[in-house]
Amino acid sequence: MAHRCDHTLHRTIHHHGWNNANPPAIRIAPGQTVEFDTIDASGGQITPVSGVEAVRDLDFALVNPVTGPVYIDGAEPGDAIRVKILGFSPSGWGWTANIPGFGLLADQFRDPALHVWSYSSSLSGPAAFGPGGRVPLKPFPGTIGLAPAAHGTHSIVPPRRVGGNLDVRDISEGVELWLPVEVAGGLFSVGDMHAAQGDGEICGTAIESPMSVAMSFDLEKRANLKFPRLRTPGPVTRHVDAKGYDATMGIGPDLMTAAREAVSQMVDLLSRRTGMAAVDAYMLCSVAGDLRISEIVDQPNWVVSFYFPRMVLE
Amino acid sequence: MAHRCDHTLHRTIHHHGWNNANPPAIRIAPGQTVEFDTIDASGGQITPVSGVEAVRDLDFALVNPVTGPVYIDGAEPGDAIRVKILGFSPSGWGWTANIPGFGLLADQFRDPALHVWSYSSSLSGPAAFGPGGRVPLKPFPGTIGLAPAAHGTHSIVPPRRVGGNLDVRDISEGVELWLPVEVAGGLFSVGDMHAAQGDGEICGTAIESPMSVAMSFDLEKRANLKFPRLRTPGPVTRHVDAKGYDATMGIGPDLMTAAREAVSQMVDLLSRRTGMAAVDAYMLCSVAGDLRISEIVDQPNWVVSFYFPRMVLE
Repeated sequence: MAHRCDHTLHRTIHHHGWNNANPPAIRIAPGQTVEFDTIDASGGQITPVSGVEAVRDLDFALVNPVTGPVYIDGAEPGDAIRVKILGFSPSGWGWTANIPGFGLLADQFRDPALHVWSYSSSLSGPAAFGPGGRVPLKPFPGTIGLAPAAHGTHSIVPPRRVGGNLDVRDISEGVELWLPVEVAGGLFSVGDMHAAQGDGEICGTAIESPMSVAMSFDLEKRANLKFPRLRTPGPVTRHVDAKGYDATMGIGPDLMTAAREAVSQMVDLLSRRTGMAAVDAYMLCSVAGDLRISEIVDQPNWVVSFYFPRMVLE
Repeated sequence: MAHRCDHTLHRTIHHHGWNNANPPAIRIAPGQTVEFDTIDASGGQITPVSGVEAVRDLDFALVNPVTGPVYIDGAEPGDAIRVKILGFSPSGWGWTANIPGFGLLADQFRDPALHVWSYSSSLSGPAAFGPGGRVPLKPFPGTIGLAPAAHGTHSIVPPRRVGGNLDVRDISEGVELWLPVEVAGGLFSVGDMHAAQGDGEICGTAIESPMSVAMSFDLEKRANLKFPRLRTPGPVTRHVDAKGYDATMGIGPDLMTAAREAVSQMVDLLSRRTGMAAVDAYMLCSVAGDLRISEIVDQPNWVVSFYFPRMVLE
């Protein structure tokens, strides 16, 4: 970890689901920094030596443990907490899975599949994908958010206006993220670290990789945000774009159907081109390719495109 | 025009709507090149000296004239025509409008608005937006496609599997586009040239700018594509990404609603920050900002993000 922080939260200080009754693990002042260690998104159920049975037997009650919560002094409903990502200490291993019933093409890919990755923890090069391809890395927290105002325990799976399982690929080093506060202190937690992911996280998993992350926290009073927003200090795709893209399209009156068409065709294209199994191409698309809305105004048909970076396979 | 082409089609050789009974303007062999001159998307109804009344009085029957059609020898249903974009001769002027009833936030922006742009026809610098901001340029054809198999005249507005009004921002210089053929010869036409546009074309118009475009045509027999696809020779956002992005999010179970939320918040953010009218921020978002699907698997809530390049205003 390149950053010395005011506080450290170990991975043992975690919770499952969001509940504003969870007692704060620590209380900090705006301007302070915290290093969070995290458990992988399987909650330790998948390890570097796991086989596909670990995916088949996955207990969803244990997924996405988040480290926290942190109480930020002075934060009140209507404020925003501004989190800045200072840096990561990647573990050097990760996993990507096709989990039955989960993912954009769950109806096409019904069997569990698992790829375990090994990569340079200094991020000095791309990660090799067994069936073919090399994926440039750009770590970020998949789950980052605050406790919602509604009472009780809420599933960690869906993101909400307070953040949570956002899976926004660009919440990476140097980025500032504004989160709307719904309860006193905000009650911030983070986990589900990803070493790489494309926009969409289309198979449902990224390169899921335990790592530590350092962040600073500031408070913006009465920001009255409807949803989170972010600011990046520079370009967001230069780790993957040097050789350009292959892009497939889905065209029609429903964005979800168009997204599924675009991804389905890229899976076909890559598996035909490389000879890899379709489920492997699907997982590779999830960690490296981007879903974009190319056109959303030419009634009644919209265009959703899936962009796959050529450098992964060339 | 940097490219000498085998054929030239003047802007007078155009049609409104798609109809496979339109007689070919020319017949070419695979491997040949064609330069197309085009009329702007208003069909000449908006000129460099137009006021907002030209938008109010716009006759939709005249929009998106396309130059063509070109019959490609040997093309048959099931084949793909591969078009390569060789280069552009931009006119140096363009327009962006809010057209009542058209655009992602048509319910919020009910009044016509027009901005006329002047830019360097050598594309040596960004185009200045009157209310504030400078927009980097990257020309492409908004409407590019083949005649559909279905009989009769079909509106030019919606894109289809044979292409058409795709408005895919990255069909720019050096890009190869594969279009599925539905009728003998393909019957290719092009128009609706844009000097700049973000992914989504959210207000319904780009920098609409008459210009010439040079292309080469090749044939891939029995490609059996479901939808168009493309290949870029290099990065697609380096003209805008150097200073990073501000991004807003919409989160929820419907992609369209989430897209509207993300854009609506960016319009608020930009108009608050710059003091420009909301409708101006909306038009600026359309020509410079990108809609991305950040997350489409964390049931039941998806995340759509709108990325606005900071260099436009900084």
